[in-house]
Amino acid sequence: MMRLAIASAAAVLVGATLANAAEPIALRDMGSFHVGGRLVEISGKPVKEVTFTPGGVPAKVDPNGTYQVEQMYVQYFLPANEKGAYPLLMWHGGGLTGVTYETTPDGREGWLNYFLRKGWAVYNSDAVERGRAGWAQYPDIFKSEPVFLTTANPFERFRIGDGAGSYDPDPAKRKLMPGSQFPNEGYENFVKQNVPRWTTTDDAIIAAYLAEIDRVGPSIILFHSQAGSFGFKVAQARPDKVKALIAVEPAGLGDPAKADLLKNIPTLIIYGDYIEKDSRWPKIRANGLAFADAVRAAGGSVDVVDLPQAGIKGNSHMVMMDKNNAEVAALIQKWLEGKGLTK
Amino acid sequence: MMRLAIASAAAVLVGATLANAAEPIALRDMGSFHVGGRLVEISGKPVKEVTFTPGGVPAKVDPNGTYQVEQMYVQYFLPANEKGAYPLLMWHGGGLTGVTYETTPDGREGWLNYFLRKGWAVYNSDAVERGRAGWAQYPDIFKSEPVFLTTANPFERFRIGDGAGSYDPDPAKRKLMPGSQFPNEGYENFVKQNVPRWTTTDDAIIAAYLAEIDRVGPSIILFHSQAGSFGFKVAQARPDKVKALIAVEPAGLGDPAKADLLKNIPTLIIYGDYIEKDSRWPKIRANGLAFADAVRAAGGSVDVVDLPQAGIKGNSHMVMMDKNNAEVAALIQKWLEGKGLTK
Repeated sequence: MMRLAIASAAAVLVGATLANAAEPIALRDMGSFHVGGRLVEISGKPVKEVTFTPGGVPAKVDPNGTYQVEQMYVQYFLPANEKGAYPLLMWHGGGLTGVTYETTPDGREGWLNYFLRKGWAVYNSDAVERGRAGWAQYPDIFKSEPVFLTTANPFERFRIGDGAGSYDPDPAKRKLMPGSQFPNEGYENFVKQNVPRWTTTDDAIIAAYLAEIDRVGPSIILFHSQAGSFGFKVAQARPDKVKALIAVEPAGLGDPAKADLLKNIPTLIIYGDYIEKDSRWPKIRANGLAFADAVRAAGGSVDVVDLPQAGIKGNSHMVMMDKNNAEVAALIQKWLEGKGLTK
Repeated sequence: MMRLAIASAAAVLVGATLANAAEPIALRDMGSFHVGGRLVEISGKPVKEVTFTPGGVPAKVDPNGTYQVEQMYVQYFLPANEKGAYPLLMWHGGGLTGVTYETTPDGREGWLNYFLRKGWAVYNSDAVERGRAGWAQYPDIFKSEPVFLTTANPFERFRIGDGAGSYDPDPAKRKLMPGSQFPNEGYENFVKQNVPRWTTTDDAIIAAYLAEIDRVGPSIILFHSQAGSFGFKVAQARPDKVKALIAVEPAGLGDPAKADLLKNIPTLIIYGDYIEKDSRWPKIRANGLAFADAVRAAGGSVDVVDLPQAGIKGNSHMVMMDKNNAEVAALIQKWLEGKGLTK
């Protein structure tokens, strides 16, 4: 009894040590690149004189000419002791960037560090028109206006708060989902991670993701929310290069008519908690289940995990930031190992 | 003679090995955070229905409410074996992001890796309205329109090409500065790193940088181009927290009337090549020299290095990307060691 208790306490300590990042991360290399995009001509506009720095020397800027647009940004971390059979590409959701997978809004390690520590070569990116990818002028190049979100919007829409009006600037006065695992105290930091987005750039985003996978080579894609459609569609366009798909709360899907293209790609779809309490997520999840069925009917293998049914409760839409993010990451890691995708 | 030749060849090989990143980078931690910013109210606008994902379920988006704006993004890499006496903050120039210090446009290691390998804790950031910092809607919050650059503009303005008309889409047809060290073959990738920028956000940028240094604590700042004024002004606002300043081709400066606030901060200012061939840089450099004189007159210590006079020739405005970037980094490292800023 005593011996078991000690062993158990030791196991808890080891777990805590890993979570606190005591082990150094050894990288054989790290760096970044941009990929994809196209050139666009703009003409017929007057030359401007721009003083780039107040008090500085003015420079003439001719807005006519060729613009580079719709490229994307990729940052990579290659572990010294690589244990993943393929690189792991991380694709963020709408109005966000690769920051999604970095440190959580309350300062814990995110999935980037988690999977890097497990020996995966991780390529974390900013999609077209997000973050370090840059964005193109509108209405000249992008044809619509960008969408900006209020501080309250994601709180209510991402199943953190319990419905409309649940947000309050005072963390103590917010009405969280019962048992929510979202780090409420870090919500302001999460809001700071939000960036403007367009809703008319899907084709450009997919083109850039195709360029990424063509450059990196055979890969596993872990994708979230808006990237649901990107992950599945890129896999349908490059079925030989995509070695596994991990869809975390996918808001969009692939082409059901081409479900057979995914039949050789092991796929995991994960949904968080409180789906039935939301106005949109029951339908979004039902679409996902139907798509999974279509892939299975074509001979594919799709595992759908509703986290609460797997005993993991309280997850918001931002699963990778929730307080139990390491528990969900461990579930993904175990799935990858089970599929023989580790060395 | 033979022995010397062999020793020399071995030294070259060792150098090449280091440049090729053969040694693993050991990190005690890595991560990111956002810092600074403010809340702004917007009211009186109609509610929109937005379909975030084509074919997805529409969501109502009320544009009225509170917006988080003017925060900045910081990514940090903490070496397992820290040798810098203070963290090294890297601040990029105008229309750019922290990508400036990452892999060079032609795929070599940038200054982020260089200084990390030397044992510096590096905090590489995206300033307000750049990259992962996000940006605010205009004209509601930002009062001016953003500036976009054509593919040709930086080539001619950053002393890569030899004057107006020097750019050509075909790398072989470009008229480079004679002896240019800029990696011409990677110029398209450099253009992909450029992001839109405003010219009316200096105060917000400085406020966020102050928040960064208040969070990180006593630091050394390495800053480039537009950040010239940010580095010196932040140092004037936090003279006790800034332990050294490394200004790389500063396009702006601090307040000359407050030069005495910099008297205890060792300062290095670096200029590249071809200054006299440019229409703006002779004046920009003269302003820098005058500012250095003002700091010296107040009892400060400022070292100004014109790289060509130090025997390092061919540098563009983007010194940290030039083919000899490691040589310039070594000059900076030596200067830091000489100032007793390493452990």
